[in-house]
Amino acid sequence: MDETGLNRFLDREFPQIAGQVRVESVDRDLLRSRMIVSQEHLRPGGTLSGPAMFALADATVYLAILARIGEVALAVTTNASIDFMRKPEAGRDLLAECRILKLGRVLAVGDVLIRSEGQGEPVARCSMTYSIPPKSP
Amino acid sequence: MDETGLNRFLDREFPQIAGQVRVESVDRDLLRSRMIVSQEHLRPGGTLSGPAMFALADATVYLAILARIGEVALAVTTNASIDFMRKPEAGRDLLAECRILKLGRVLAVGDVLIRSEGQGEPVARCSMTYSIPPKSP
Amino acid sequence: MDETGLNRFLDREFPQIAGQVRVESVDRDLLRSRMIVSQEHLRPGGTLSGPAMFALADATVYLAILARIGEVALAVTTNASIDFMRKPEAGRDLLAECRILKLGRVLAVGDVLIRSEGQGEPVARCSMTYSIPPKSP
Amino acid sequence: MDETGLNRFLDREFPQIAGQVRVESVDRDLLRSRMIVSQEHLRPGGTLSGPAMFALADATVYLAILARIGEVALAVTTNASIDFMRKPEAGRDLLAECRILKLGRVLAVGDVLIRSEGQGEPVARCSMTYSIPPKSP
Repeated sequence: MDETGLNRFLDREFPQIAGQVRVESVDRDLLRSRMIVSQEHLRPGGTLSGPAMFALADATVYLAILARIGEVALAVTTNASIDFMRKPEAGRDLLAECRILKLGRVLAVGDVLIRSEGQGEPVARCSMTYSIPPKSP
Repeated sequence: MDETGLNRFLDREFPQIAGQVRVESVDRDLLRSRMIVSQEHLRPGGTLSGPAMFALADATVYLAILARIGEVALAVTTNASIDFMRKPEAGRDLLAECRILKLGRVLAVGDVLIRSEGQGEPVARCSMTYSIPPKSP
Repeated sequence: MDETGLNRFLDREFPQIAGQVRVESVDRDLLRSRMIVSQEHLRPGGTLSGPAMFALADATVYLAILARIGEVALAVTTNASIDFMRKPEAGRDLLAECRILKLGRVLAVGDVLIRSEGQGEPVARCSMTYSIPPKSP
Repeated sequence: MDETGLNRFLDREFPQIAGQVRVESVDRDLLRSRMIVSQEHLRPGGTLSGPAMFALADATVYLAILARIGEVALAVTTNASIDFMRKPEAGRDLLAECRILKLGRVLAVGDVLIRSEGQGEPVARCSMTYSIPPKSP
């Protein structure tokens, strides 16, 4: 699936996040996504909440798996590990880059770097495992 | 701080989550909290989203640290590791239990088990590290 | 399998760690193990190495799974997350306590607390996921 | 510090691992290291043990931090998260590549990809946090 197909999938299947997370580009090695930051993601002091960054990482790995194997509506996250390394810039969108490191029959592993738009240093890194359901016969 | 003080702190400082997460009880060993599950936490198929469970774990560890050391408005999560182990029950609140395993001068570590109300087996476990800012002189 | 059976399994299948890790007790909720600390586990300053504690956690979760489902020689670790929280006492064995939090058909999840013998506070916590191979027909 | 300086540091301060782990190259973005695989790292079936891969990741992140800030003998690992993704090749050395993602005053975060020599796909990924002791005055 390419970025258009993935964004349509989001619109159709995940309307509650489709307004916040969009795929920017995708090729075999890297999927890039954007979180459109709004008031609901903010915490006191103008910083972005950890759960908002987690949600971006989670959606991005999922989309990168779909880009490789097509629509698998029931893939579920089984494990996530996340490091919050810097404070995101308050008024800027977040950009995520995901690599799929393993794409097995049962488990897929990806990692993600998240940056504030226009900044060089990552604000967070995350690795995630997804369980892929068996294909129906 | 006791449960009343912690819930007041949530109301005052984190209004965006105070309607969703409440402290149920707290003593030296364990803080119990509840996530009042609503439509916005749900995913296709009626299941709860991973980010909603992450948000509950994050708030619960933070509250358990505050229960021990008092209000520290700027403590920040530096690392989280979460295992999603079972599908939560769709129509039920989530209950979380947090242990503080380390409470150092600079870093605190807690872990959390999350269950659907009325169920025995946990749906998720999470461990988190918080960085505690130095006291102002 | 009980502690005698598990220790025999270690002697037979994992001779390279059987001299270091022993099962102390096992029931449905908790498996307790011991690492007999020797010179090879030490680091400069007399502290125990992180990899030694990782090895103890890894063996302990594996043994706790075997205690529940019998010998599965090919179960493999797929994910581990470990927090090193305090410096272990130099001249003391390590004691580990493992809970199995999920025992599925394909994945098992356990967590472990590690203490220096005679100390109350844990030196490390670890959670691990094991992949369980399908039963041969 | 360059690769010669880092290998001398290993020889002098960590003789128990200096025979197993060597720095191959280092620049600002990436440190490459090698684990010389021997009998002691093997598990039944000829595979490499998880703790051996953990030890390689741990040493590699530590060396990459030293490459940037010089000798800090007492930096300690506070958190590690590792995904074991494929079975390493039995008769081959392991090669690790480490990026330092954050180098703060108190905490440093790095991630590592591990491959069997001559193979394209990684066998493991690991992210680690190190606590950096305050400079003595």
